[in-house]
Amino acid sequence: MGNTIKRLAVLGSTGSIGQQTLEVVRALPHHFRIVGLAAGKNVALLSKQIDEFKPSFVYYQEEKAQTQLAKDDYELLSLEEIVSHPQVDTVVIATSGTSGLRPTLAAVKAGKTVALANKESLVMAGELIIQEAKLNKARILPIDSEHSAIWQCLRGENQETANLILTASGGPFLGYSADQLKEITTEQALKHPSWQMGKKVTIDSATLMNKGLEVIEAHWLFNTTFDNISVLIHPQSIIHSMVEFIDGSVKALLSYPDMRLPIQYALSYPERLPNPHLPQLNWDTINKLTFEQPDFDTFPCLKLAIEAGRKGGTYPTALCAADEIAVDFFLSQRIKFTDIAHLVERILELHQSITNPTLEDIMTVDTWAKQKVQELTGG
Amino acid sequence: MGNTIKRLAVLGSTGSIGQQTLEVVRALPHHFRIVGLAAGKNVALLSKQIDEFKPSFVYYQEEKAQTQLAKDDYELLSLEEIVSHPQVDTVVIATSGTSGLRPTLAAVKAGKTVALANKESLVMAGELIIQEAKLNKARILPIDSEHSAIWQCLRGENQETANLILTASGGPFLGYSADQLKEITTEQALKHPSWQMGKKVTIDSATLMNKGLEVIEAHWLFNTTFDNISVLIHPQSIIHSMVEFIDGSVKALLSYPDMRLPIQYALSYPERLPNPHLPQLNWDTINKLTFEQPDFDTFPCLKLAIEAGRKGGTYPTALCAADEIAVDFFLSQRIKFTDIAHLVERILELHQSITNPTLEDIMTVDTWAKQKVQELTGG
Repeated sequence: MGNTIKRLAVLGSTGSIGQQTLEVVRALPHHFRIVGLAAGKNVALLSKQIDEFKPSFVYYQEEKAQTQLAKDDYELLSLEEIVSHPQVDTVVIATSGTSGLRPTLAAVKAGKTVALANKESLVMAGELIIQEAKLNKARILPIDSEHSAIWQCLRGENQETANLILTASGGPFLGYSADQLKEITTEQALKHPSWQMGKKVTIDSATLMNKGLEVIEAHWLFNTTFDNISVLIHPQSIIHSMVEFIDGSVKALLSYPDMRLPIQYALSYPERLPNPHLPQLNWDTINKLTFEQPDFDTFPCLKLAIEAGRKGGTYPTALCAADEIAVDFFLSQRIKFTDIAHLVERILELHQSITNPTLEDIMTVDTWAKQKVQELTGG
Repeated sequence: MGNTIKRLAVLGSTGSIGQQTLEVVRALPHHFRIVGLAAGKNVALLSKQIDEFKPSFVYYQEEKAQTQLAKDDYELLSLEEIVSHPQVDTVVIATSGTSGLRPTLAAVKAGKTVALANKESLVMAGELIIQEAKLNKARILPIDSEHSAIWQCLRGENQETANLILTASGGPFLGYSADQLKEITTEQALKHPSWQMGKKVTIDSATLMNKGLEVIEAHWLFNTTFDNISVLIHPQSIIHSMVEFIDGSVKALLSYPDMRLPIQYALSYPERLPNPHLPQLNWDTINKLTFEQPDFDTFPCLKLAIEAGRKGGTYPTALCAADEIAVDFFLSQRIKFTDIAHLVERILELHQSITNPTLEDIMTVDTWAKQKVQELTGG
């Protein structure tokens, strides 16, 4: 690779993954340069990031921000313009929720290397995105710790014959009964035992919806059937996932739960780079790794997601959209924790799936499911 | 690879590793064919193996056996002739102890692929063997479960920047005090908690000498400094070793403790083959993996071996030879369990090391150390 500096555009730069991506870039200035930054509403932080990383292109959602940001040194572009710009080598999709879909597709169509942290893109439009990636020779590199782990375990191996084992911390309510879950507060649900993450993914981790979305994502990323993907609860979050090969050998990828590790791997791939800011496993203190099977009855979101994935069509889109609004409503205390699963289940029952959906189909279903959740909750 | 059948010569075919190698071949007759068998004194079993696998070449140590074996269908050759024969693709060195050294060197000089289960070869003559392997484009593929695990974890990776973590079950006396170890019987020491192995390696596992020899072996196999190799106790023997990369990510290789897995991997490499006889990890029953640091004071053989490895020259040879006789004496109840370490330590103190030893130097030191142990024990 020599001294080639990779030029990055980071979408969602003020979110949790976006900020950690910038931490990696800050630590490795000779390897990466930020040429594009895009954010939603946190203009204060975006402004600081612009000062520090001096991107050539900027996008922000909030219109008011225009007056607050100095515009001397960069161009204001649309998301689509940024992700397809010739000066961009790698696009980091660090936005959460369904808003990641369009820019992901645009980056893939532009033949870029896409470092993907946004789950919803592949869950909602896996077939479309993978198809376009092949057509345009774009590469999709996972940033999610589980998929990064699988990707790393598959390195140098023949993945056609492999079973994927996604590990899950089990979230803060591992071992809770269905009754106990009814009384969960937003505060409790936002305290994840091992990962520091955004709010949406933290709640999804508590319901295990997150793991279900990851199963669907793994299906698309690694071209693996649902029968060959399983979920294993591992509360310490040290083993980030495993791959079982045809001869019975299993490879696992271990590290402390720190998103900067999979972020950096996706950015530096195929190289691995030393980064003194990243934690190294200390086997003086790791005494025990435990494992148990997931409880599909108490955490129905996991089952709902895998079923939606198996059914295909626009079921995963409906699932994703319903979950996004349901989580929002739980965070604003309009519904109970256990209502998230109830609402998602109801939407899937009501949904009429479209096979081989276009982007327009997907966006239509997205809107339908979100409105339907509002209706069902009297919103 | 297609339908190419690999033609194997198995040295030590009646021992534990040899028999398990033949089990793998029996399960995969379309991939492997036995063309050579060599054994020591178990003529009855060798005779059965000849009947079943119909090798072209046979060697056996016991002279009396000549009358007991029908010789119609195979040639009697020397070990050197077998390992260098043009009809042999891969030589499996499954002999235990120092007797593996000469044939390993001969196979390497003949440019063969060498599947190596014999620890002593690399420990005693690592520099020579690695040098000859490079010169003659021979490949050395590890069969030991730990080295196979490291080799698998390094697959597709850049190993120059990796730290190796060899796991160790800790043997049957994990947690024992130095005083408790004094009273160990041969029967107790031969009961290994997780592995079915030959007697020599089972005792070496109980003293942790085995792990020390593996550290030296890893040093040669993976061209890794002793500072970058560590040992971690993991009593369940599910993780067979790990590799820590420069970015802090750690890869581990897991399976049930079954030597047929690493044997098959070495034989089938770079392919992985399905084998219904091999056990697959069942995560319904694996609830916990535990880890602790090794106790170098209670198990001094581990420290002695690593020190001998660091010093280099003929220290590892003296260590190996002394241990071989000491274990023999313990098995025949002439010395106590804890005397094994005392004797090895004494030999290393008395030893005058030769730098860059030739094979003759090594054999001289081997003889010297073995005789010295006999002298020291009044034998």
